[in-house]
Amino acid sequence: MKKIVNDPERVVQDMIQGLVTAHPGSVKQLPDTTVITRKDAPVSGKVGLVSGGGSGHEPAHAGYVGKGMLDAAVAGEVFTSPTPDQVLEAIKAVDSGAGVLLIIKNYTGDVMNFEMAAEMAEAEGIQVEKVVVNDDVAVEDSSFTSGRRGIAGTVFVHKIAGAMAEKGGSLQEVKAVAEKVIRNVRSMGVATSPCTVPAAGKPSFELADDEMEVGIGIHGEPGIERKKVATADEIAGELTDKIFTDLDFANSDVAVMINGLGATPEMELYIVNGKVQAILADQGMNVYKTFVGEFMTSLEMAGCSVTLLKLDNQLKELLDAPSTAPAFYS
Amino acid sequence: MKKIVNDPERVVQDMIQGLVTAHPGSVKQLPDTTVITRKDAPVSGKVGLVSGGGSGHEPAHAGYVGKGMLDAAVAGEVFTSPTPDQVLEAIKAVDSGAGVLLIIKNYTGDVMNFEMAAEMAEAEGIQVEKVVVNDDVAVEDSSFTSGRRGIAGTVFVHKIAGAMAEKGGSLQEVKAVAEKVIRNVRSMGVATSPCTVPAAGKPSFELADDEMEVGIGIHGEPGIERKKVATADEIAGELTDKIFTDLDFANSDVAVMINGLGATPEMELYIVNGKVQAILADQGMNVYKTFVGEFMTSLEMAGCSVTLLKLDNQLKELLDAPSTAPAFYS
Repeated sequence: MKKIVNDPERVVQDMIQGLVTAHPGSVKQLPDTTVITRKDAPVSGKVGLVSGGGSGHEPAHAGYVGKGMLDAAVAGEVFTSPTPDQVLEAIKAVDSGAGVLLIIKNYTGDVMNFEMAAEMAEAEGIQVEKVVVNDDVAVEDSSFTSGRRGIAGTVFVHKIAGAMAEKGGSLQEVKAVAEKVIRNVRSMGVATSPCTVPAAGKPSFELADDEMEVGIGIHGEPGIERKKVATADEIAGELTDKIFTDLDFANSDVAVMINGLGATPEMELYIVNGKVQAILADQGMNVYKTFVGEFMTSLEMAGCSVTLLKLDNQLKELLDAPSTAPAFYS
Repeated sequence: MKKIVNDPERVVQDMIQGLVTAHPGSVKQLPDTTVITRKDAPVSGKVGLVSGGGSGHEPAHAGYVGKGMLDAAVAGEVFTSPTPDQVLEAIKAVDSGAGVLLIIKNYTGDVMNFEMAAEMAEAEGIQVEKVVVNDDVAVEDSSFTSGRRGIAGTVFVHKIAGAMAEKGGSLQEVKAVAEKVIRNVRSMGVATSPCTVPAAGKPSFELADDEMEVGIGIHGEPGIERKKVATADEIAGELTDKIFTDLDFANSDVAVMINGLGATPEMELYIVNGKVQAILADQGMNVYKTFVGEFMTSLEMAGCSVTLLKLDNQLKELLDAPSTAPAFYS
């Protein structure tokens, strides 16, 4: 796999440089860290929101830093959790006295390092709460996780908790609405090709020319089943079936996210969306809003995930609230 | 190359279905056509803007249909111009009596078919003007084109002409500002992997494991040179050098677009952007706004293009104007 990079060991630093210079009006890098914050952080009186994780999932997470969404994103090396000291720097940079919520995807390394950072921050007198996102219905445990993995549904947590913080919610209120999103969001994905970590230089796994991996994780962790590549309609059916088995969406208002994992043409994402929408209509669900694009990727993996979020009036209002984050628009 | 599709012969229809159901509040499909229009088309008193071309370049062009941008996009088969009768349907659907501007990428088939549609519309009493975008500095003629090709810079034409139409500009005013953008915009791209047209089932060209094609077109047409894959910094330097040789950007205010061709991780686009920004700063240019993402793709081709647009106050204001198009946000 060819890469357009300078030095495989320096991709994260180079990426951050490129991101900050692309959006100099809205974000900044904390000097000597891999932390991106809102340019105006800390925002007086506002709860701070910090997320992050391994790099390679762009636009997650730095693309979601902005007014109405995250206050900071911490970038680890590719597919590697950021260290506790980096997370601590982010917490300190966004705390204005109202406390900080950590939004953590459920991977063992992330949970451990973010929790350690929370303890360090609390020792410095900062009030910290955390939520752990585990929206992936594919597998209960995996090579990277105890319990379910956090994948694209995390973006809805960023958006909705971010809107709640922006409108002045307290730390407990912001945490409560983040937990509500986590209870109501489910995702599952499929991959048709692997990805290559730049420093590793070879694909993380192999798939035969006619195979796909159902229930893939965003680091290429194994899913449920490896089988012949199915049609878009079959894939849409299989992913939504598994989601519906896990949570009853009947007669709900839902937000839909069709997320490309990196190399999949947008044409194919729209084709999958067409079937997903037909399935939801058949089941009596009302689609409130749909997002099609790349939100939580896995380098140049080909494939997609489907995320459904059950909405009530509060979640709709917060989902619709304005945001200046470069990678999300309502 | 594996595809997430249903029937390779039906990808365009399926994609349109998925796009319309994703954005039912802002766009609609003209029955029995491959034309997507604004939901409220025709907009009374407003000049109508129509663009389009072969499919496979998503989000171009249907993703740019919305308030403040295009009134209609016509989708041809993959990498194939739409037929004149489809373009005519689009013109008729968006004309409110104020006339229609066609924004055509410079490919022989597109120019011919859009011109034929314009003549047919004029015979029906509709006032039609056209502009042809030819921003690609790589090659003067190609297998698909007489003269330069139109690539990602086209999106700036859509945005700025769309804003002018939205604020009530006359057909001549909208055409004039579109031509101003065309005079001021330049692009060039590089590919590290080919793409596969679904109905063809095999890659459109081949590249060795260590090769890239400099000056590639968005249908895999040959560029200037095939050579060893360079670093991101070298690629940024080569693309901007060629652009600067073509048009003097010294001391200008510019908009920058780093466009992914389909399979390139966003991380790599940001890495390229970092160097492009450094080069522009070195040359005394002032970057007004930067766009990093997928705007004009070539299915799952890996690679990127760099687009620079020289801005004056009028173009800045129109670039910043709001738009509801799903794939563009200012």
